[in-house]
Amino acid sequence: MSPVAVSFFGGSSGLWRVEAMNTIVGEALPQVARLDVREGSLSALEPAGCRFALRGSTGHLRYVLAHEKGGLAAVTPPLGRDTATCAALIPIRKSAAWWELAQDERRVILQERSKHISLGLGYLPAVARRLYHCRELGEPFDFVTWFEHAPEDSERFDELVYALRASEEWQYVEREVDIRLMR
Amino acid sequence: MSPVAVSFFGGSSGLWRVEAMNTIVGEALPQVARLDVREGSLSALEPAGCRFALRGSTGHLRYVLAHEKGGLAAVTPPLGRDTATCAALIPIRKSAAWWELAQDERRVILQERSKHISLGLGYLPAVARRLYHCRELGEPFDFVTWFEHAPEDSERFDELVYALRASEEWQYVEREVDIRLMR
Repeated sequence: MSPVAVSFFGGSSGLWRVEAMNTIVGEALPQVARLDVREGSLSALEPAGCRFALRGSTGHLRYVLAHEKGGLAAVTPPLGRDTATCAALIPIRKSAAWWELAQDERRVILQERSKHISLGLGYLPAVARRLYHCRELGEPFDFVTWFEHAPEDSERFDELVYALRASEEWQYVEREVDIRLMR
Repeated sequence: MSPVAVSFFGGSSGLWRVEAMNTIVGEALPQVARLDVREGSLSALEPAGCRFALRGSTGHLRYVLAHEKGGLAAVTPPLGRDTATCAALIPIRKSAAWWELAQDERRVILQERSKHISLGLGYLPAVARRLYHCRELGEPFDFVTWFEHAPEDSERFDELVYALRASEEWQYVEREVDIRLMR
């Protein structure tokens, strides 16, 4: 349960080959060929040829309620499954208006109206997911989400991402880049 | 509303003179004579003679609900008032059991049963308060809270701190150091 720190380095080296980089909203990131993922430190040194670095840290659940927690945990797969050769790195930043909302107002938008938690649940265990927080690290994004799935689940993963982007919650997203990867 | 980063350096220099350092639970911090508070960076360099460094970042409200927010904002004073020559720096770390709770379980303990938010409200505007988050920065504490008040409110401030320590929420605190300061 201790926070896990990670650094994502976009450049010319790393296990993951970049298949596509799409700027959904806001400023783009530099186009790169590979992604190097280094777990365990917020201060890992940038490798040669690095064109962007994103850092984050896992944390406790912010919106999941007690009655939802068990159901999620029961079907949540680990990262690193042999079959999960596709990944996505999706950094987002939300607006000041989002962060000024109270906890109950954010929960209502996120789950009661946008179904963020239950939407994701529908794609478990096919799509493994890990959320990294970075707003309080002084990073350019608030979150980086890392997804892993098998090639045959790529269309279903797209479906999930499109559903989230169509939600009320996403009206508060002011920067988003969608990076698809294969290893 | 952007997060404000801060570094607290305990040592032999800085605006704030240490009046008392008490370890409430868990490991102590090195005894120091002065505290240097540097706002604006998580990576400020440690001054000469520094014996401990604590870093944190402000963030959005985690537990305050919409109906509580206006009342709090109306009476929340700024930091740096001329009359507020006393301060306290109280870093705490909560247990794994706390962080494994769901959002609604933490809220019930923090406010419905421990009255953390309403207790604090009773001491506004006398006691100014700013919460810094550090759990996801890889720091030894989860939070650092900074308080400022006038000398004549010292007893009332103690009353607030004692009430919180007697609450159910504080059963989840596994490390706490209480540092009292004057400028």
